[in-house]
Amino acid sequence: MSGMRTETDSFGPIEVPADRYWGAQTQRSLRNFRIGGERMPGPLVRALGIQKRAAARANMRLGALDGTLGDAIVSAAEEVIDGRLSDHFPLVVWQTGSGTQTNMNANEVIANRAIELLGGTLGSKTPVHPNDHVNMGQSSNDSFPTAMHIAAAEQIEQALIPALKHLHAALDAKARDFADIVKIGRTHLQDATPLTLGQEFSGYAAQIAYGIERTRGALPQLYRLAQGGTAVGTGLNARPGFAGAFAEEVAAFTGLPFVTAENKFEALATHDSLVDAHGHLNTLAVSLMKIANDLRLLGSGPRCGIGEIALPENEPGSSIMPGKVNPTQSEAMTMVCAQVMGNHTTVTVAGATGHFELNVFKPVIAFNVLQSIRLLADAAVSFTDNCVAGIEPNRERIGQLLSESLMLVTALNPHIGYDNAAKIAKKAHRDGTTLKEAGVALGLLTAEQFDQWVRPEAMIGR
Amino acid sequence: MSGMRTETDSFGPIEVPADRYWGAQTQRSLRNFRIGGERMPGPLVRALGIQKRAAARANMRLGALDGTLGDAIVSAAEEVIDGRLSDHFPLVVWQTGSGTQTNMNANEVIANRAIELLGGTLGSKTPVHPNDHVNMGQSSNDSFPTAMHIAAAEQIEQALIPALKHLHAALDAKARDFADIVKIGRTHLQDATPLTLGQEFSGYAAQIAYGIERTRGALPQLYRLAQGGTAVGTGLNARPGFAGAFAEEVAAFTGLPFVTAENKFEALATHDSLVDAHGHLNTLAVSLMKIANDLRLLGSGPRCGIGEIALPENEPGSSIMPGKVNPTQSEAMTMVCAQVMGNHTTVTVAGATGHFELNVFKPVIAFNVLQSIRLLADAAVSFTDNCVAGIEPNRERIGQLLSESLMLVTALNPHIGYDNAAKIAKKAHRDGTTLKEAGVALGLLTAEQFDQWVRPEAMIGR
Amino acid sequence: MSGMRTETDSFGPIEVPADRYWGAQTQRSLRNFRIGGERMPGPLVRALGIQKRAAARANMRLGALDGTLGDAIVSAAEEVIDGRLSDHFPLVVWQTGSGTQTNMNANEVIANRAIELLGGTLGSKTPVHPNDHVNMGQSSNDSFPTAMHIAAAEQIEQALIPALKHLHAALDAKARDFADIVKIGRTHLQDATPLTLGQEFSGYAAQIAYGIERTRGALPQLYRLAQGGTAVGTGLNARPGFAGAFAEEVAAFTGLPFVTAENKFEALATHDSLVDAHGHLNTLAVSLMKIANDLRLLGSGPRCGIGEIALPENEPGSSIMPGKVNPTQSEAMTMVCAQVMGNHTTVTVAGATGHFELNVFKPVIAFNVLQSIRLLADAAVSFTDNCVAGIEPNRERIGQLLSESLMLVTALNPHIGYDNAAKIAKKAHRDGTTLKEAGVALGLLTAEQFDQWVRPEAMIGR
Amino acid sequence: MSGMRTETDSFGPIEVPADRYWGAQTQRSLRNFRIGGERMPGPLVRALGIQKRAAARANMRLGALDGTLGDAIVSAAEEVIDGRLSDHFPLVVWQTGSGTQTNMNANEVIANRAIELLGGTLGSKTPVHPNDHVNMGQSSNDSFPTAMHIAAAEQIEQALIPALKHLHAALDAKARDFADIVKIGRTHLQDATPLTLGQEFSGYAAQIAYGIERTRGALPQLYRLAQGGTAVGTGLNARPGFAGAFAEEVAAFTGLPFVTAENKFEALATHDSLVDAHGHLNTLAVSLMKIANDLRLLGSGPRCGIGEIALPENEPGSSIMPGKVNPTQSEAMTMVCAQVMGNHTTVTVAGATGHFELNVFKPVIAFNVLQSIRLLADAAVSFTDNCVAGIEPNRERIGQLLSESLMLVTALNPHIGYDNAAKIAKKAHRDGTTLKEAGVALGLLTAEQFDQWVRPEAMIGR
Repeated sequence: MSGMRTETDSFGPIEVPADRYWGAQTQRSLRNFRIGGERMPGPLVRALGIQKRAAARANMRLGALDGTLGDAIVSAAEEVIDGRLSDHFPLVVWQTGSGTQTNMNANEVIANRAIELLGGTLGSKTPVHPNDHVNMGQSSNDSFPTAMHIAAAEQIEQALIPALKHLHAALDAKARDFADIVKIGRTHLQDATPLTLGQEFSGYAAQIAYGIERTRGALPQLYRLAQGGTAVGTGLNARPGFAGAFAEEVAAFTGLPFVTAENKFEALATHDSLVDAHGHLNTLAVSLMKIANDLRLLGSGPRCGIGEIALPENEPGSSIMPGKVNPTQSEAMTMVCAQVMGNHTTVTVAGATGHFELNVFKPVIAFNVLQSIRLLADAAVSFTDNCVAGIEPNRERIGQLLSESLMLVTALNPHIGYDNAAKIAKKAHRDGTTLKEAGVALGLLTAEQFDQWVRPEAMIGR
Repeated sequence: MSGMRTETDSFGPIEVPADRYWGAQTQRSLRNFRIGGERMPGPLVRALGIQKRAAARANMRLGALDGTLGDAIVSAAEEVIDGRLSDHFPLVVWQTGSGTQTNMNANEVIANRAIELLGGTLGSKTPVHPNDHVNMGQSSNDSFPTAMHIAAAEQIEQALIPALKHLHAALDAKARDFADIVKIGRTHLQDATPLTLGQEFSGYAAQIAYGIERTRGALPQLYRLAQGGTAVGTGLNARPGFAGAFAEEVAAFTGLPFVTAENKFEALATHDSLVDAHGHLNTLAVSLMKIANDLRLLGSGPRCGIGEIALPENEPGSSIMPGKVNPTQSEAMTMVCAQVMGNHTTVTVAGATGHFELNVFKPVIAFNVLQSIRLLADAAVSFTDNCVAGIEPNRERIGQLLSESLMLVTALNPHIGYDNAAKIAKKAHRDGTTLKEAGVALGLLTAEQFDQWVRPEAMIGR
Repeated sequence: MSGMRTETDSFGPIEVPADRYWGAQTQRSLRNFRIGGERMPGPLVRALGIQKRAAARANMRLGALDGTLGDAIVSAAEEVIDGRLSDHFPLVVWQTGSGTQTNMNANEVIANRAIELLGGTLGSKTPVHPNDHVNMGQSSNDSFPTAMHIAAAEQIEQALIPALKHLHAALDAKARDFADIVKIGRTHLQDATPLTLGQEFSGYAAQIAYGIERTRGALPQLYRLAQGGTAVGTGLNARPGFAGAFAEEVAAFTGLPFVTAENKFEALATHDSLVDAHGHLNTLAVSLMKIANDLRLLGSGPRCGIGEIALPENEPGSSIMPGKVNPTQSEAMTMVCAQVMGNHTTVTVAGATGHFELNVFKPVIAFNVLQSIRLLADAAVSFTDNCVAGIEPNRERIGQLLSESLMLVTALNPHIGYDNAAKIAKKAHRDGTTLKEAGVALGLLTAEQFDQWVRPEAMIGR
Repeated sequence: MSGMRTETDSFGPIEVPADRYWGAQTQRSLRNFRIGGERMPGPLVRALGIQKRAAARANMRLGALDGTLGDAIVSAAEEVIDGRLSDHFPLVVWQTGSGTQTNMNANEVIANRAIELLGGTLGSKTPVHPNDHVNMGQSSNDSFPTAMHIAAAEQIEQALIPALKHLHAALDAKARDFADIVKIGRTHLQDATPLTLGQEFSGYAAQIAYGIERTRGALPQLYRLAQGGTAVGTGLNARPGFAGAFAEEVAAFTGLPFVTAENKFEALATHDSLVDAHGHLNTLAVSLMKIANDLRLLGSGPRCGIGEIALPENEPGSSIMPGKVNPTQSEAMTMVCAQVMGNHTTVTVAGATGHFELNVFKPVIAFNVLQSIRLLADAAVSFTDNCVAGIEPNRERIGQLLSESLMLVTALNPHIGYDNAAKIAKKAHRDGTTLKEAGVALGLLTAEQFDQWVRPEAMIGR
């Protein structure tokens, strides 16, 4: 059988493709879990590389691991980190709930690559053994949640927060650009008192600013690493000092302030920290759903909607209606938000269903958390660049709607009282006239008084 | 200690209020579960009355229960059914997950009331014993799910489906009333080709018609009753024939085609049928969210929104803005829909988390299912009577928007091609002119051709 | 710029890779939606092929489409159906909410491939135009939901229901194999009265049997096709008879009873049918979560758990604990269930958030529905083959636990009453003795009576 | 019509019960919203009292409100705060989405009660007008969200956090009490390496400690008050300085550090802060579900389960099985958790569905947030007092299981290697022997070596 080589594990020998570094346990997982096509996310594989590298370095520091073997393991792990070995991580999310098979995938790939670097024979487990050396002092039960935290924290720091800042800057710029544009407000979807278009955008900007703050607030709990707990949290078979040395290595490599978790039992048996962090992603989805929805409503038309702003026209909108342009970036964004809300239910159910010393929904939690981060980050950038940045106010339309509105009547309350003001509004609405006409006709004020009292530009606050 | 009497159970004596029929186990639950204030829903208590009545009658038919005692139990159970004893069911939802305490509450109240009817002493368990006579041949494990099915089926039949029919009739009437009102369509919130307002409402009516059909489709699985399974599904301690006789009694009393469940193990250990039925309630929430949202958008304004329809004005809308009227029925409805969607998550989690022979999330499932049914039914009636029935079209506004729309250009595709039609639409949009002006200016058609080809009333289908 | 060719749309020219059939609108989507990596699911692309094929054939039947062009379109569409052109569908889910870009992707690929078949030049739109010929009489707004229904129905029929039947058969076989194995029942996770292991499995089998029935019940609403509604439901620009002819073509090709939807407004503006169908997938997730969880609990141990059954050992379970074997198929299954429950929230939110004539969450709904179907189907097969089929009872352990249980005392109720029976159980529990010993010690029965009355094999029903 | 009096609003006169303080708008809401029975939560009504009191005092400080009227308003508001007027707040949650009707309910009740205090006539609006005086400088749009934040923050501070601390203390005490009890660990529900029962409980305690920390972290965003934004966020009709003075009054009264929100547009149009705070409640539900589930599994039995701990026996567990005691506190807790998870979906959908200047899902958000807080707080106390505090270890059972476990073999890895250790475990499992017997039989170690190397008490970490 050319193109294959034999690998072994405690279940016996098994054939694997000769051009792949993975070993017996990875191959067994491929056979036993033919479910869906969702592979372990790239950032998680990268994080396992970081985890194996840090473990090898910590074990060398502690004198547990031979330097030659350790250096080869570090080199191989760095290839995993760089993504050069991504074709060697074929496993899907739907496998063992501890992520053991993907942890062993990493152990096997790194061991074989290290063997190769040292001139050995793939599959020989000599001089580098996947369990005894690459997985030294580790269990999947602490390694996998460690990788989950590293991946989530890195992605939040490096992808999500920058993307949110980018969006915030664009919304904030619009808030300043539109600071002088007085427009009608809407509550209950009904005409209300005026505000500026800039104030409206300042609300969106504030939502994202708070979102950044909340997301940052989630990071400290992700910086706590399970590593060192090994099988059940007691640290059996890990050297004294390993947990702390490991966290230092990860912190140094990533530049993020990772520390070892105080309570390893909590860190293995639960994913409360990731569930909680995803709660903030869910809040972001709620915020972005509101913003994206508002923008498409404000841009609705061009003739038969609200039409106060114009969204950029990026592509033809219809296969049947010529010239139609649609708020497609809002649509992509709101679909992403719906996905993130659903992912939150998944993460919640998965987080709640652990037993005793181990939560065994690790891969599905990792998958959903990392998908939510990626989608929110990517969508924030796309939405900013292809929509927000190009929004233009339709000053003519805004002015026309403002002048027609009945809710300017609110400014009369201090002068003629709520009840009289209500009479004017109702009469104007019934007769289809302006407020001024109705007020004068009712004898409640003069035209001059109206002009003096009802000035939208004076109704928008400080 | 005046005003109290002593009741006993296998844990010993306990004081209960002298003017209440409940006994020791109810009182113990009151002490041990001081959680929230959500009491067992009325329809469930009623259903337990039906369940106890049917059990007594079945046991009498089978010769297991003495006629005098049985008749007294039936009489007391009928008082429970009528709601006359509702003050004697004080327990909250957050108790034992089998509903045992509420089942015992029913057993105790009916036993004491039957004792009273027979001239005995409350708390004496003589001549009617709550376990040996009222609960004869039963377990909470089959009685409570039986009551859940009875309550849900009754409420769907008697409250929800009539309410939905009421709403459907109103929407359907509007669809017919508005059949001749041609208006602009909107896709992606952008102007699209025309349709009639009646067609738009026909879509809403169809949603509800399908919703009725789906909800009806959920009933057969609710008609399957767990009774007769007793403790674990085997029917231990129930007389042969009891399950069938019981279902006949319930069917006769309610007029609904209840039957005994084929597989009692499934009927005790799972609530898949209620989870699935709630899936249809969730679909109804999705439908109603869309309808209520559309209606408030169509009615937005009065001056600065879409304003194609006028919703009834039922109450003042603002404590600060005089004359403001809001789409409050849509708001109540959409809040109900959000609640039902959340209830679906609760029911899903609860349904998924059973163990072995019994699902012990019974009270929370009952609570949420019955709340969803009630809220949807009540909201459908309120929404119909206070909103839909009074909707009026704003023909002037509809006509104005229709005439301004650019998407009528779609009618030119067969005559001048998609690309030329797009040029006309884009020019008109850019220049702020009509399509006719743009088309003539571009030399792509004559004014006469335009008038002949672009006729909204011909664009609305058969 | 070698390797590229120029394509055009109403926004102007754009370069596309020369070796791809897609055109300008697909390329624009690639540029504008760099979000995530989730591509449109294969079954949806296949369904769009079926949709384009049926449209071309219907248009030829109606005399609207030239036979030469139509035949070329049909040939190209069949290549899409067969999956031969899957590399030409690069778009992600996170695009326009109508799926227009993927509909245009299909139109462009089929047009270019048909042009190639007819000897023309790619990108020339001659003699086959993506809009005028491939998309003839269609809009994305009816084509995409049509493809969603076709894809979901095909996948349910061809993948999910067969997988569920496979699982049901395995559970049912175990129910029969284990029919004579009397074991202790458990309610509230506490020891209860006995049943057979076969009865326990019959409950699981019933859950799946009902699940198949429910899933089948979802199909009729999926067989209703939106095609023929075109842009807003009125059917503008489609030939009379097109909707019916189209549905016939799809039905003939797929062998499934597709029909044209009665109300096209509902069919474009809502996805209630898919939301409702996903409700049944959610119920399946609830059922499978229960079953998979029970099986791993029953198989827990090997020494310190319940250990009544042995699950197949498929792979090493631990990277640190030698010889450990884990219930990995249950873990994969329960993770799939958590995903499906979350997908249901996504589909619910997406379905509820449409506006007016179009729901623009189509791609995310399609993505989640098809993912749920695939995961449930694949997981059901994997779970059956790698777990259920190989389950063995541990008769010794089952017998030992049964004989030790205190809840056999329930059989004494009819003989000595509930209260005396409770005394025996409590004494045995307190003293750590058998029930018989406690009963005799209390003088409530003789050893002979105990043996006569307490026979587990007589406590398991008919 | 005796027993009624006439009240008026801008819609005209309406009859209200003479013995109630509420006015026309409350009465209209009662008529128009006959939906469900869920009244506005008590803590929200109290918070509206605090809000009205603070507004009156701030307006007096700013010279806007006459002192006599203001003092009467303050007195009446304090009666609302104390709960003495709770019978005068009859409205349900399912009303206008801004909570305007409940805000007017408060305005009307306080105005009429103040009128009464000042010797006036109920319904006369003299000398205290519900809008002009009680609602002075306010809108429902800023008052209601202000009350929502006050209510949620007070309940978290006063009910939830103390309850969580109570639970944490009990778990932490058990962790210390059980620190010396070595037991078998379980991962994947399978036997794993040992830990102490105290370590296991320390994980639960850590979960709650983190939960307290997270919940506290949610408070700063709740301390931001919308008041001062009035109708749309601009502060129209509020005196300069009102927002700040108001927040000072609330802070002084409640003793909590409330401040005025920086951006009032965000504070009216969104409830991101409450959505985000509920995310932490959802995390608590996830944590508590795990703990409650573990405890009932550890306490399962008494004879046929795991049985390592004994839960307190609080009440009879079964209406059919004598002597049965169930983990009812765990059941109540897990039902509460399922409810909170569902409430999170509701709050998420509601928070995401606002439009423009106002989110109109305010009542349903308030209802769910306050229900979740109450249920979690009450359940935490009940669970602590009726379950956790009384847990006893079953030392005999724990010791027996520990000695039988195969996973102690892990301690051999450093001595004989993973592969040899696996051989011993597999042989012992297959033959049903001890590890020592298997190891000696395989010739891999001596009995003395085994005793020296495999010492559970040395396997539990530092």
